[in-house]
Amino acid sequence: MNCIPDSEFNNRIKSFQKNIKAAGLDAALVHGNEADFANVRYLSDYWPTFEAGGVFVPAEGKPVMIIGPESGTYAAGRSKIKNIEKMVEYRESAEPQYPGIPVASYQQVVANSMGDRQVRRLGLVGYSVMTLPVYTSLQRDLPGVELVKADDTLIDLRIIKTNNEVALMKKAFAISEKAIDAILAEIKPGMTELQVIGIAQREIYKHGGEYEGHALYCFCGPATNNAISRPTYNKIKKREVIQLNIGARVGGYSSSVGLPISIGPLPARKKRLVEFGLEAHLKTIDLLKGGKPAAQVVTDYEAWVNQQGFGKYMLYGPCHGIGMMEVERPWMESTSTYDLKPNMTFQVDTFFYDVDFGLRWENGVRITKTGVEKLSKKYMKLVEL
Amino acid sequence: MNCIPDSEFNNRIKSFQKNIKAAGLDAALVHGNEADFANVRYLSDYWPTFEAGGVFVPAEGKPVMIIGPESGTYAAGRSKIKNIEKMVEYRESAEPQYPGIPVASYQQVVANSMGDRQVRRLGLVGYSVMTLPVYTSLQRDLPGVELVKADDTLIDLRIIKTNNEVALMKKAFAISEKAIDAILAEIKPGMTELQVIGIAQREIYKHGGEYEGHALYCFCGPATNNAISRPTYNKIKKREVIQLNIGARVGGYSSSVGLPISIGPLPARKKRLVEFGLEAHLKTIDLLKGGKPAAQVVTDYEAWVNQQGFGKYMLYGPCHGIGMMEVERPWMESTSTYDLKPNMTFQVDTFFYDVDFGLRWENGVRITKTGVEKLSKKYMKLVEL
Repeated sequence: MNCIPDSEFNNRIKSFQKNIKAAGLDAALVHGNEADFANVRYLSDYWPTFEAGGVFVPAEGKPVMIIGPESGTYAAGRSKIKNIEKMVEYRESAEPQYPGIPVASYQQVVANSMGDRQVRRLGLVGYSVMTLPVYTSLQRDLPGVELVKADDTLIDLRIIKTNNEVALMKKAFAISEKAIDAILAEIKPGMTELQVIGIAQREIYKHGGEYEGHALYCFCGPATNNAISRPTYNKIKKREVIQLNIGARVGGYSSSVGLPISIGPLPARKKRLVEFGLEAHLKTIDLLKGGKPAAQVVTDYEAWVNQQGFGKYMLYGPCHGIGMMEVERPWMESTSTYDLKPNMTFQVDTFFYDVDFGLRWENGVRITKTGVEKLSKKYMKLVEL
Repeated sequence: MNCIPDSEFNNRIKSFQKNIKAAGLDAALVHGNEADFANVRYLSDYWPTFEAGGVFVPAEGKPVMIIGPESGTYAAGRSKIKNIEKMVEYRESAEPQYPGIPVASYQQVVANSMGDRQVRRLGLVGYSVMTLPVYTSLQRDLPGVELVKADDTLIDLRIIKTNNEVALMKKAFAISEKAIDAILAEIKPGMTELQVIGIAQREIYKHGGEYEGHALYCFCGPATNNAISRPTYNKIKKREVIQLNIGARVGGYSSSVGLPISIGPLPARKKRLVEFGLEAHLKTIDLLKGGKPAAQVVTDYEAWVNQQGFGKYMLYGPCHGIGMMEVERPWMESTSTYDLKPNMTFQVDTFFYDVDFGLRWENGVRITKTGVEKLSKKYMKLVEL
């Protein structure tokens, strides 16, 4: 089973409609694209490629899947929402004109969804990736309608995972560990970082992944001090930190397993920070438990790191939400205002860096009443090949 | 050489500034994200991951690279534009708050770029992917400034390729052909479409690719009638059309080679449409030549297909621009108003479909005064394994 059952998609729409109503909205427009697909896929299983996608959901009435002009056959086969409209606002960024392909306006989408009922307040979900063509057409087609950022109406549902969602995440994490197994068997000095990524990609697809869970990381040497970066033609060297963050995606659920490795023993200074990072990683896992305020985890973690004398090597952390996106809400920050709840899923993300290198331990956990269930645990250990 | 030299990046900025001035604009704000990276990378070589990216370019003054709060180290190492500002509008879609990381406003970006000079008309480039947080902050920070869609000021530069750009594209196409070589050597009935993609991914990275050039296609049987789709766990079968569209990216330049193959001979009806598709593909290549109106290529092609009696199997075509994005401007449509020029690069994209299958031939070409130079040509032939 690599997918969410239809009944669960139906429940998602119903719960979302309740939230839309409770927020005093008449409807919500959800936006997604190839990279930021999660909100749209959560409701429809539709995963845009080349084009963007949207879902219009009324407080009462029927949802409408919105696609670009080229995706008709794809969406008809894939979307759980079979009521589909094509709109030019969702076309490719190359902006083809598609002479001869009829497209709808937002007025037509509203009429399709809500019949004679009016929309006065429309929630926007996926606000941070919603585009100008969508926004300006909403203003043109629905003059006078109040447009309100309303991400919480959907994200609140996504934060607590069902058993089916957790099962897909576990499968994704297991595939990530298999991809790391293969890297450890094949990595050699002189390979490029990108060639190491190729090993992981082959394994992800071989073992049942549908895609990478995020743009994969392999960095060697000084490049490891990047919190965010891209692998390059930089060559793998002995006795350097080699940072791997490898994640598979299954059924729309993403994972990542991160660990620093080396070929040959690391110099003592680097080994010490790698080992401390692992201690800090395990410390975070100890701090997690249903009912605990998220901000307290952060302040406890940071106090502990400072107490150990490693505060100056800390950039951020210690956790962010994981699910459909490898990074999704909620982040765990000192400013967070929520408590941990059972079946929230977090990526424990432990990054430390010095001027000339860095390291990152990453594993997934599911919050329980008493602590956590680990979604991955094979690579919580020092690996010196 | 897997990159564009610094001198060419400098020339791009200068030419862009001329176009900004000629369009009566004081400056332009360019937007890109992980998937739609091209406009930002063209100017800076910066390729966002997780976060988005922007470039602010004044008609006179110095460009500013705009990144998200987490990408400081990455951008400092990678961006050709060393004048960098962090802005919260470019953060991840999970919307972390990043307590303690200082960020700029658009007012500060303008002051950094233009000193005391004022911006009255600001061009927006990458309009179709520009997000609401960017737009609403522009309105808040720069009240009274006229915001104008201005994609042409940059796209006009990207359409005509330099020799360095063509060299990267040729390398990307060559790697795509190697990935197809490996698929043909390893594909077997019973594999999933996704496992075939894994073979291609391994080869792309092994031979010097930096990423896939687009979300790769392998579809078998009825799934081949999708113009746009995603590979699935559908299994490879004998005597069915298996559609491969495999593309590598090198130095920011994308490619794709597309062909329908089969394991064992195809039934006559399917084989006839596959063969006709190849004839049509070669016909398009014959029709291309510097100086010719783009719309005429389309009308000539469509007239020829109809004359051959295959009009009812045609969805669209026959070409779209290719370069940094596997699909970029200009598309070749019956409504196109430009003429073909030497060093425009196109993907000849020949798609035909019936109710129960489809096929697509894809190869790249560079327009010359007398015709085209093919960027890939190994797989313009029927492959029955």
